Amino acid sequence: MDLHGYYRSSASWRVRIALNLKGLPAMHLSHHLRKGEQHDPAYLRLNPQGLVPTLSLDNGPPLTQSLAIIEWLDETHPTPPLLPTDPLRRARIRAFAQVIACDTHPVQNLKVLARLRQLGLPEDTVTAWAAWANTEGLGACEILVANEQGPFCFGSEPSLADICLIPQLFNARRFGVDVSAYPRLLQAEAATKTIPAFQDATPDRQHDAE
Amino acid sequence: MDLHGYYRSSASWRVRIALNLKGLPAMHLSHHLRKGEQHDPAYLRLNPQGLVPTLSLDNGPPLTQSLAIIEWLDETHPTPPLLPTDPLRRARIRAFAQVIACDTHPVQNLKVLARLRQLGLPEDTVTAWAAWANTEGLGACEILVANEQGPFCFGSEPSLADICLIPQLFNARRFGVDVSAYPRLLQAEAATKTIPAFQDATPDRQHDAE
Repeated sequence: MDLHGYYRSSASWRVRIALNLKGLPAMHLSHHLRKGEQHDPAYLRLNPQGLVPTLSLDNGPPLTQSLAIIEWLDETHPTPPLLPTDPLRRARIRAFAQVIACDTHPVQNLKVLARLRQLGLPEDTVTAWAAWANTEGLGACEILVANEQGPFCFGSEPSLADICLIPQLFNARRFGVDVSAYPRLLQAEAATKTIPAFQDATPDRQHDAE
Repeated sequence: MDLHGYYRSSASWRVRIALNLKGLPAMHLSHHLRKGEQHDPAYLRLNPQGLVPTLSLDNGPPLTQSLAIIEWLDETHPTPPLLPTDPLRRARIRAFAQVIACDTHPVQNLKVLARLRQLGLPEDTVTAWAAWANTEGLGACEILVANEQGPFCFGSEPSLADICLIPQLFNARRFGVDVSAYPRLLQAEAATKTIPAFQDATPDRQHDAE
């Protein structure tokens, strides 16, 4: 498998964690987002959005969208599971993941912030926008897991929720959000830091890190 | 089941289609988004994001996030299926759904457009923003299904992809997007129009329609 990504892309980071948890090797191919390499025609044939990640398979069409890729990994390589078997628990964990992957990250990604700048908004307004998106999303996530047993978001093992949480906390800090308001999320983050699959997926450990 | 929604909410609309396809009755409770009713403390206890939809169950926690709700419906009421059994096909359909539910709709929803207005941007700029988000998303969706057999997005039966597509086409038109650029998507839309489950879910047929 080839994972088309970028070291600092949150969505690529999610898939890196999932691949590592499953113990699956992949060639990591970098597309420099700030240089616009994701808009190369050859890459657009794999991913018509011009976004990372894309998972290229030997036998099969390219897979796009990080959550779809991770669910595919979980369905085809079930151990360890990234979602439990109980439908209600699956729904709760997916909802947490989607708060981040639908309502938080896309509202503050590179593309949206670039457009805000194009509209003439000053840099501090752009940063405040990104911080707002993170505060709204992570605040809801903190409530969603408030009554869940730790140390991870949903219990004693990492799940799709933790996979989405870790890169988002990185973003939140980058935009100056005071993450101490989210003690349960920080507890989950601390638990992931002991796991090599999470350690090896961080941006600073990727071959294209700057 | 109680579905907390709003007649014009795209995400509520998706869940209405899914409930109808499954033949499941639900009480439809309206929260007037433009009056801010989604921020009532009683509702925030069900949905800490203050967004619709939420599915309240007799036995179980409230379920939030439309895609998580729809996957729960599909897992607990498998007929008719909203996703096929083949993992690769599931991944392709989920990716299509997420192009809309992650990268398109949240970038142009009520909350984001309200914030753009708060930043002092004029109405035509706000509308152009929403049109841009729709054009980017639907353009990618058209490519994702270009080589798929119709008449629906992915084959001869409606799926999660069609459920996400229909409300987004409504949005795109509302913001002035020329949807004739997406013939495959329009073919899928035409196919859904013959199905009562889709017909009955449109905003104009809801009890809170204005």
